[in-house]
Amino acid sequence: MTLRASQPHYLRIRDQLVIDISQGALASASKLPPERDLAERFGCTRVTLRQALQLLETDGLIYRENRRGWYLSPPRVRYDPTRTSGFMEYVVAQGRIPVTECLHAELRPAGAWLAKRMGLDHPEQAVFYLQRRRWVDRRPVLLEYNALLASWCPGLLSHDLNGSLTALLRERFARVHSRSEMSMRPGTVNDVQAELLQVSPGSSSFYLERLNFGEHDQPVEFDQELWRSDSLTVVLDTRYPG
Amino acid sequence: MTLRASQPHYLRIRDQLVIDISQGALASASKLPPERDLAERFGCTRVTLRQALQLLETDGLIYRENRRGWYLSPPRVRYDPTRTSGFMEYVVAQGRIPVTECLHAELRPAGAWLAKRMGLDHPEQAVFYLQRRRWVDRRPVLLEYNALLASWCPGLLSHDLNGSLTALLRERFARVHSRSEMSMRPGTVNDVQAELLQVSPGSSSFYLERLNFGEHDQPVEFDQELWRSDSLTVVLDTRYPG
Repeated sequence: MTLRASQPHYLRIRDQLVIDISQGALASASKLPPERDLAERFGCTRVTLRQALQLLETDGLIYRENRRGWYLSPPRVRYDPTRTSGFMEYVVAQGRIPVTECLHAELRPAGAWLAKRMGLDHPEQAVFYLQRRRWVDRRPVLLEYNALLASWCPGLLSHDLNGSLTALLRERFARVHSRSEMSMRPGTVNDVQAELLQVSPGSSSFYLERLNFGEHDQPVEFDQELWRSDSLTVVLDTRYPG
Repeated sequence: MTLRASQPHYLRIRDQLVIDISQGALASASKLPPERDLAERFGCTRVTLRQALQLLETDGLIYRENRRGWYLSPPRVRYDPTRTSGFMEYVVAQGRIPVTECLHAELRPAGAWLAKRMGLDHPEQAVFYLQRRRWVDRRPVLLEYNALLASWCPGLLSHDLNGSLTALLRERFARVHSRSEMSMRPGTVNDVQAELLQVSPGSSSFYLERLNFGEHDQPVEFDQELWRSDSLTVVLDTRYPG
């Protein structure tokens, strides 16, 4: 097999677009020039140009707005699930502005589904259930649902829940998580969630759930996170045993 | 704040549906009864029933087919990125049947984008570039693109690439990865990818990329994985420093 002389045309266009974008040479006010102009500039067909643009879309660098053209995506928040820092901390560390807004908080019985998911003794066990919305740079990006064993942090609801739950638990209750079991997958948003995240109903989302364990390895908190699909990248460094 | 007597109606319906599904009591041949019948059975409105069904959809337990009703999803493959085992191994370990199909393999220059992404000295460096499709239980679930430094595994293309690349590298080249930098996020599929995964163009996907390092901590391989969005859950156990 011989070395190919060059890449396909659409890959070379993609490469050039990535370079232009990173140098700020392409978009004015985050909107890309029309496809027609770009195709002319690269001396290619609209079909070839679209192939290149779709690669950038898959990479999350640009997104399409209904019939209005292509736009640069704001950078995704990076989340490393192996670190303990909470949303408020890791967003600030990335030079962005995080806001947390508590939408609803109540004390209620766990119910059959949550009891099973948390491994509780019975479904009547009391949990604090929080629904919160989180913003990055004035854009709503995340809906978070937390269920915490009420016996683990009694009186939680009398505190301000518009901030870091991690910090609140640590500072007011001397509670920390010893470990977490986490899973992640694409999801969708229902009508209510779509409205809260300012996306269309049925849009895709990035869904994370986390079962957190307390100091005696007992399950204490079950979290569900629903991210706008263009707002998060999960990053992870793994070292393999030699 | 007082303990609420019970959960909202739609949450109780969701809980009951989860139990019915797990006991195989609901669906015949993986199709759920019509919404009308389910609403009657639970003594609720279609609106309330839909709220419950949408929660199950978000959880990935059921999916909707255009106007044909609700179906049980086949179980998602679970992938733990902190383990070294490859696709062929972890799918078998979950009692499923994996197949790998090499669609395309070539030797080519890395190009600007890949050279930057892999931290190569110059874009003319030669890489083996593989495009493979992977199946679970006769359903195409994953498109994988691997770029491997040709100098790291010379002659790779003369081997059978319709199997485990991990095993091939280990057994024929005595090559293993020492560590990986990984990132994951939702993506979309373009027309070609949609056809290969048997989904509609523009469907959402689960996108993973992995930069793998060799024995001297040098970058040797860059992988991109595009999963059908209903086929994968990434799982991760994290122990926090005390």
